[in-house]
Amino acid sequence: MFIIGELINGMYKQVGKAIAEKNKKVIQDLARKQVEAGASALDVNCGPLSKNPVSDMQWLVETIQESVDVSLSLDSTKAEVIEAGLKLAKKKAVINSTTADQEKLEKLIGMAKQYKTYLIGLSLDKKGVPQDKDRRIELAATIAAAAQDDGFPVEDLFLDPVVLPVNVAQSQGINVIEAIREFKLLASPPPRAIVGLSNVSQGTCERNLINRIFLIMSVGAGLDAAILDPLDKELMNSLITAELILNKQIYCDSFLNAYRKK
Amino acid sequence: MFIIGELINGMYKQVGKAIAEKNKKVIQDLARKQVEAGASALDVNCGPLSKNPVSDMQWLVETIQESVDVSLSLDSTKAEVIEAGLKLAKKKAVINSTTADQEKLEKLIGMAKQYKTYLIGLSLDKKGVPQDKDRRIELAATIAAAAQDDGFPVEDLFLDPVVLPVNVAQSQGINVIEAIREFKLLASPPPRAIVGLSNVSQGTCERNLINRIFLIMSVGAGLDAAILDPLDKELMNSLITAELILNKQIYCDSFLNAYRKK
Repeated sequence: MFIIGELINGMYKQVGKAIAEKNKKVIQDLARKQVEAGASALDVNCGPLSKNPVSDMQWLVETIQESVDVSLSLDSTKAEVIEAGLKLAKKKAVINSTTADQEKLEKLIGMAKQYKTYLIGLSLDKKGVPQDKDRRIELAATIAAAAQDDGFPVEDLFLDPVVLPVNVAQSQGINVIEAIREFKLLASPPPRAIVGLSNVSQGTCERNLINRIFLIMSVGAGLDAAILDPLDKELMNSLITAELILNKQIYCDSFLNAYRKK
Repeated sequence: MFIIGELINGMYKQVGKAIAEKNKKVIQDLARKQVEAGASALDVNCGPLSKNPVSDMQWLVETIQESVDVSLSLDSTKAEVIEAGLKLAKKKAVINSTTADQEKLEKLIGMAKQYKTYLIGLSLDKKGVPQDKDRRIELAATIAAAAQDDGFPVEDLFLDPVVLPVNVAQSQGINVIEAIREFKLLASPPPRAIVGLSNVSQGTCERNLINRIFLIMSVGAGLDAAILDPLDKELMNSLITAELILNKQIYCDSFLNAYRKK
């Protein structure tokens, strides 16, 4: 499972403040803690209040890379902010993200090829988030086809069915889970499936429980990657156990600790 | 979700002792607690040490029915022990269980028809427990076909893919989960899928965690029923949340309590 830690995001008050004040310690602590907890990569998002997202992205990438040596997921709706991060990234980066809109898709696939990155493609377009499974698959297929046509390696493509909060779009949970299963059939080798997990519990009570159960059901459907909070220990224990049950980790009595040490 | 409480089983020391001493209080407390925690039915098993399983089954059924008003799952490898319970059961009972062996299958389908019960059919025969998914489906199909041929209502049939401990048969977990998904395709209306959950964690550390994650993945694959410990509160919370995500329970902030009260 490819785990992208979500915590370095300017929408969190403490992180937004650290970015504004160029407080390296806050960012580097968050980077280290997430990697120690099992993150394979770290999401980097300047947040909605950044006045200068290009230079904030540059500062974040440099600051994070001083403390940890993992892939960075450059998270912005603006291609120039992503590219500013790509130019500095030392390891194979993740572009987070493109939509299925033709113009954006062409630009970001081109960028992903140029910088040899992973690419996250969201099942949405200018018309908004799909309200059923079939539209999710249609938009994902558009992205997968564009990637193939453009010679981008499909195994570096992560398709995201777009998770919605269970308290406002309850019927969409099962559509997302079923879409994950069907994404794998869109190309050969299969593209990978990813979710931005925490959105499922936005505004609910029992956030951690809902995150955990949604993640496990998604992993059962074939999920390959998730953007999540790796400091949620119960969540990570659940994920390790799910991989155990799917025979991706060998059982030993101390499997939780054994996996963490890897 | 049809939840069968597993705790009234003579293999548990305290229950075996209560059966031997005809101690009603122990049995009735266990019955009440399981029903209060959300069990739709209670499994009744005299245990391996019972010297007179027919009369022990009769005593258990009468004792339990004095305290709670739910279906009973009459659990024995001996048809005459099951029938002794069926004769006394006040609500629609569950026969637990038949295998795919022809002789046993005929006898227990006949009994299920005569007493108008649910029937659990295990994906195993004299050759033992299957070591892959296809054999599980083949044996389940044998059971479903026999039920249909004999005019037994398929919606009253629960097919059990036979869960094995993750520490000794790790590769079987995913076979069981995939078998659950395919069981639903064996007949129309679809037969229901059930698991005896606790076996997955037999002999492991982290039993509750493994039970929980295996259950959630199975529910995601279409599981309809489980024999489990309803007093495991985290397990029940996980199950409620899984049904929420699958849109089978309406979200409200207090969904955990709201579901319990139903």
